[in-house]
Amino acid sequence: MNDFTFLLPTKFVFGRGVTDRVGAELAAAGYRHALVIYGQGSVIRTGTLDRVLATLDAEGIEHTELGGVRPNPEVGLVREGVALARECGADLVLAVGGGSVIDTAKAVAVGVPYEGDVWDLFAKRAKIVAEGKLPVTCVLTIPAAGSESSASCVISNDELKLKRGLSSELHRPVVAFMDPELAFTLPAYQIAAGVTDMIAHIMERYFSSVGPVPVTDNIACGIIHALVEEAPRALADPRDYDAQANIMWASTLAHNDIAGVGRNAVAGGRAGGWECHGLEHELSAHHTGITHGAGLAVVFPAWMRYVWRSAPERFLSFGRSVFGIEPVDAEADGVDVTPEEAVADAVTATIDELQAFFVSMGMPRTLGELGVTADDIPALLETLEQNKGAVFGDLQPLTMDDARAIYESCL
Amino acid sequence: MNDFTFLLPTKFVFGRGVTDRVGAELAAAGYRHALVIYGQGSVIRTGTLDRVLATLDAEGIEHTELGGVRPNPEVGLVREGVALARECGADLVLAVGGGSVIDTAKAVAVGVPYEGDVWDLFAKRAKIVAEGKLPVTCVLTIPAAGSESSASCVISNDELKLKRGLSSELHRPVVAFMDPELAFTLPAYQIAAGVTDMIAHIMERYFSSVGPVPVTDNIACGIIHALVEEAPRALADPRDYDAQANIMWASTLAHNDIAGVGRNAVAGGRAGGWECHGLEHELSAHHTGITHGAGLAVVFPAWMRYVWRSAPERFLSFGRSVFGIEPVDAEADGVDVTPEEAVADAVTATIDELQAFFVSMGMPRTLGELGVTADDIPALLETLEQNKGAVFGDLQPLTMDDARAIYESCL
Repeated sequence: MNDFTFLLPTKFVFGRGVTDRVGAELAAAGYRHALVIYGQGSVIRTGTLDRVLATLDAEGIEHTELGGVRPNPEVGLVREGVALARECGADLVLAVGGGSVIDTAKAVAVGVPYEGDVWDLFAKRAKIVAEGKLPVTCVLTIPAAGSESSASCVISNDELKLKRGLSSELHRPVVAFMDPELAFTLPAYQIAAGVTDMIAHIMERYFSSVGPVPVTDNIACGIIHALVEEAPRALADPRDYDAQANIMWASTLAHNDIAGVGRNAVAGGRAGGWECHGLEHELSAHHTGITHGAGLAVVFPAWMRYVWRSAPERFLSFGRSVFGIEPVDAEADGVDVTPEEAVADAVTATIDELQAFFVSMGMPRTLGELGVTADDIPALLETLEQNKGAVFGDLQPLTMDDARAIYESCL
Repeated sequence: MNDFTFLLPTKFVFGRGVTDRVGAELAAAGYRHALVIYGQGSVIRTGTLDRVLATLDAEGIEHTELGGVRPNPEVGLVREGVALARECGADLVLAVGGGSVIDTAKAVAVGVPYEGDVWDLFAKRAKIVAEGKLPVTCVLTIPAAGSESSASCVISNDELKLKRGLSSELHRPVVAFMDPELAFTLPAYQIAAGVTDMIAHIMERYFSSVGPVPVTDNIACGIIHALVEEAPRALADPRDYDAQANIMWASTLAHNDIAGVGRNAVAGGRAGGWECHGLEHELSAHHTGITHGAGLAVVFPAWMRYVWRSAPERFLSFGRSVFGIEPVDAEADGVDVTPEEAVADAVTATIDELQAFFVSMGMPRTLGELGVTADDIPALLETLEQNKGAVFGDLQPLTMDDARAIYESCL
């Protein structure tokens, strides 16, 4: 168990109807003018935006709106948000949406006090400063990215064909309003992609190079186990409150580090090498129609098959905890396999079961289903190397040749 | 899954040698004068107190010391602390110790701005106020009570023979320094009592009247499962860093509500009826030599045997998740038991296994081992009723007759 610092300053207001309590909470905290950011109109159609704005009006909190955030949010809108926040004198950025909207809000919030172009922060040419940074709050409408309490923020730059993450403890929202009933109207594909994203967030941490950390590992596998049970319920009946509530809370836990504590290879660092997020980010940076979770559903099993031999015990633990899969005992079970074959069979069965679960939710199995072909791979590798370097990863360092092999294995 | 608000503002600085970083962290946060509270001398003997004070000196943070906190801390020392904090102008209360020391620090911190006697707050004759309350920080030396990030504070009043809890979100420490190496010198009994206390904190929440909350329930059982594996390692070799680190982190998670989220019967309320803590508090209030965890080791299994029939499915889930115990299937297993008998057998096996685990760590099985006899029960019931009312509990409301029966069942 490695040394760590853990601080989760976000206040979670969770449950039925919390959407109607936004204004009262924010007024009590003293906020006066919110820059309200949202996506491509679903929060207008469902009435969620109006509900939120009404609570602001009721408390006399001024608001300025900026809509149009797309999946894989782009820096252009962030720049607009920064200008607008300065112009209207916002003292808070309020995201009404999912991870893309919240990430846009986070980027705007850190962009406000920075005098240059906000992309400089993502290009690591300048550092986030605390002074003048706006606080962020959110009404979560899509459980998936965990952005409602994470230190993460990922923004794309279409011009440069780049998708860049910028992590900072300063990003964590001050309040997250989580109303599971808002998930009742989500399309099945979005529920499925969200659940896949959560599971991926946990697995990136679980499959770090650090040995067992039983408390953290059991939490990690316990959340995944719950998701494997709850997701089919939410897909069968999107109005199943308990299923949606468990999924929504899992989205938070999957990415606020509680499922990774002590699994960081470097003291004080982040748990996991985030190999699959690195591989996936290129997919959705180049093909902006790809939903992040759907890309992960393809890439993660492929990565697991490619690297498991560097830590077989870890993959066995995962299979045991999440799916109850044990390697056969040749002697006791009277079968003719070597111990090595038994391990390989158990790991393969684990990855097969995980992938079958993703597919059962409607997620793709291949890059082909996402419209990505062999011809696209060189371009993916080019920006992958720009973003991650020539060698990246933690459990098993990956070269660009490794990355090519992984992409090719799931065409 | 019930509605909840969750806020965990404590910053955890966890790992090897964090004891030597106390002053630097506190100076960076701007603190200038710490009232340092400790117990009955073990932190002097181990050198921990001197290490902490040296880090304060190095940063020019003034400090005033108050030692002598005993297990089941008493309001007398709290009063001394309040007077001392006012006199020296402390802007922070720094606890160096376990739950008793941290609870004393919390009580002092809320006592400072209150003009009357601090016991009024515990007697619920006056309310905690935020203004003027001192922040609390701690260097945790005994993983057990979870006070390092909990909203709990329990203080005894010898004169009144009362032990009273006073919960408040304001109690949560601002920073918790958690150095697992400090646990290397703990007596085995204290390690065992600490682990029992953690498991009890989780079980109080798990056995609330709310139905399954899979994400939370899996986290709860996952932490207990890890403790059942790590505790024997720490007892066999107290210098097993990973075992001690997992136990120390579990102490925090067991009582910061992450293992109870959504299990609260009342929206926004606390998860669980805390029946066993209620029953145990009387034991250690009347017999101050009883270690809280040891009292819980006796009371919890007795309570489980008394009430399980009001929620058999809950007890089966617990046995399944923590110990892998399944009721026999009469038909499939070819045995002659009714389904009801199979459930009773599985629940009994679960409680037996839990109790055997406590006993294997050196915890008592009976009240007799703690020096409590049948003659003591009337006095226990008298203050129990004062503290909890004539009927208390959540999973199954308990009358004083029920409480008597539970005490008698474990004499």
